Amino acid sequence: MQSSETLDLSLELLQQPSVTPNDHTCQDIIAARLSKIGFNIESMRFEDVDNLWARKGTTEPVFCFAGHTDVVPTGSLEAWDSAPFAPEIRDGKLYGRGSADMKTALAAMVVATERFIEKHPQHKGSIAYLITSDEEGPAKNGTVKVIETLENRQEKIKWCLVGEPSSTNTLGDIVKNGRRGSLNAKIIIQGKQGHVAYPHLAKNPIHLATAAIDELCKTVWDEGNEYFPATSFQISNIHAGTGATNVIPDTLEITCNFRFSTEVTAEELKARVTAILDKNDLDYDITWNLSGLPFITPVGDLVKATQQAIEKTTGSCTQLSTSGGTSDGRFIAPTGAQVIELGVLNATIHQVNEHVNVADLEPLAQIYEEILVNLLA
Amino acid sequence: MQSSETLDLSLELLQQPSVTPNDHTCQDIIAARLSKIGFNIESMRFEDVDNLWARKGTTEPVFCFAGHTDVVPTGSLEAWDSAPFAPEIRDGKLYGRGSADMKTALAAMVVATERFIEKHPQHKGSIAYLITSDEEGPAKNGTVKVIETLENRQEKIKWCLVGEPSSTNTLGDIVKNGRRGSLNAKIIIQGKQGHVAYPHLAKNPIHLATAAIDELCKTVWDEGNEYFPATSFQISNIHAGTGATNVIPDTLEITCNFRFSTEVTAEELKARVTAILDKNDLDYDITWNLSGLPFITPVGDLVKATQQAIEKTTGSCTQLSTSGGTSDGRFIAPTGAQVIELGVLNATIHQVNEHVNVADLEPLAQIYEEILVNLLA
Repeated sequence: MQSSETLDLSLELLQQPSVTPNDHTCQDIIAARLSKIGFNIESMRFEDVDNLWARKGTTEPVFCFAGHTDVVPTGSLEAWDSAPFAPEIRDGKLYGRGSADMKTALAAMVVATERFIEKHPQHKGSIAYLITSDEEGPAKNGTVKVIETLENRQEKIKWCLVGEPSSTNTLGDIVKNGRRGSLNAKIIIQGKQGHVAYPHLAKNPIHLATAAIDELCKTVWDEGNEYFPATSFQISNIHAGTGATNVIPDTLEITCNFRFSTEVTAEELKARVTAILDKNDLDYDITWNLSGLPFITPVGDLVKATQQAIEKTTGSCTQLSTSGGTSDGRFIAPTGAQVIELGVLNATIHQVNEHVNVADLEPLAQIYEEILVNLLA
Repeated sequence: MQSSETLDLSLELLQQPSVTPNDHTCQDIIAARLSKIGFNIESMRFEDVDNLWARKGTTEPVFCFAGHTDVVPTGSLEAWDSAPFAPEIRDGKLYGRGSADMKTALAAMVVATERFIEKHPQHKGSIAYLITSDEEGPAKNGTVKVIETLENRQEKIKWCLVGEPSSTNTLGDIVKNGRRGSLNAKIIIQGKQGHVAYPHLAKNPIHLATAAIDELCKTVWDEGNEYFPATSFQISNIHAGTGATNVIPDTLEITCNFRFSTEVTAEELKARVTAILDKNDLDYDITWNLSGLPFITPVGDLVKATQQAIEKTTGSCTQLSTSGGTSDGRFIAPTGAQVIELGVLNATIHQVNEHVNVADLEPLAQIYEEILVNLLA
């Protein structure tokens, strides 16, 4: 295996047990590298979350690398074949918590930036970094607060590349150019408790609700569009009953989630859910939580620069997609920035034995560098 | 309000917090009264359950009062208007856990027996009491074990009156002369865990199961017959989900219960449930628990003696019924005994603010006494 600057920095970052919201010096490691090549470093700590805003240059346009140093918990250590924070290479794969999501991308960004600046010291515009330690957690004191700070001082990002693991089968096969919205609902259906032997004296909320639940599960909310797959509905939790086998429960509680396209609004989804519940004569309370609106970055200079960089490096075409979970892109896009996500393969994220192909690390740094060339050289 | 021996003994029993399986001296209180009037007392403790077998007389036929001293838990104390084990009379109603189910009936039995024996010291046959503290619980170490003991020594009950609250609108309007069968099922439906944003990589067991659940809830299992109402199906518990809002759960667990007539067998019900699950292509495990077969006491000397006693006391006719929950009658009937259930109004059993009409207590004792007169005087 050839030595690799991207691998070396990845290993350094992966040794830090930076479980949300603990950055565990990762941002210091990155800032030290960026500082050496002329970046201005701003640490922005909000409550228990560390954020890094680094910028080289004072002129527009601003190209920003965005990402996070925090990782999800390891779960049971016994389930791992090697310690999650002692990164290990086996059979060409780099194992460790955060190897895919997303410390190797952070390393590739830094290495790409160093190389680009060495070759193009007089580049156009500015390069920036927006790194948080609260992407996997509540996401209240991370990117959203940094963006607020930038907006308040009218500091604008034009192009933003989030290093989330977007690839599915081969490096760069998928670029995310938007994300679906995410809407949560907690529905409590009211019945009347009683003895199972006297059902006519009780109202079983499970029996009352089954038709509505069946309809919610079967409804086609939209067909999606050019950029978005069809809106999906999933029940994540359903609970009723005291544990006793002879008691009809008084309430049924359901938690559900929409991942929705731009073909439907959150308000429309709410109205359609309540219409289904009302049609079934249910007595219910519903609490909504909109955790992100959908956003889209249409094909433009950022998308084109990225497609060209991937094709040049890998020889393959890339596909645009808006599927998958939310990311901090949802906080950056509303400022008017073009936002895409491009990183390593996501097959093992949030799982035990999370890993990434070592052979993908240098090509990722090359793609990132090539994007900088396309936009700022 | 006139003073009442039945009320006084009821209050004494209701002050005992005898939550299943704890008898909390209730059987001692009853045994002390019976002992004074010539009963032979046998305490039969099986594991954590107290049982009382008391008998006056050695000849046949044996008339047996049956019942239980245990009560269901109180639930949240804040929901009660007065403390559940500090019985209180308000507006002609006696409030307390166990007031309807079934400590006032126990008091009425004892008072009726005392009066009957005083007036008929040379009565025919024997009078017996079979009292347990495990009717509301697993019912493994209560009546079923006492009956086993009696059967082993060939001690036979001819007539059995269970003091369960059978009345619906007025005292004695309903006598239970049989009970439906009770069949429990625990169904675990297998799915595949995953992220709500990637439903195509997971299998949501809630979504998979909703159509089958809806069908189970809507199925007409039979139409009942002369003695039995239609078989009923109730889901008592349904659970899926880890609590996380972004995780599709891997399994769905359902607990359900049939109360079934003699028009259908437990085996038929099992076959029909599995057919519905199979038709919906579900991957499931099912565990069955048959907690009682249906039984019936046709019109005969016990039923007639009871009907006559009710009419004489209340001036109203009574109706035979087999609806409602199981009772320990299911363990006594298979010995060949005639079994009926007669007690106070059941409107508030197992509920907060459980209560009974004070004005029904003395008439209940009179009915019980009159039944003894009709059968043993």
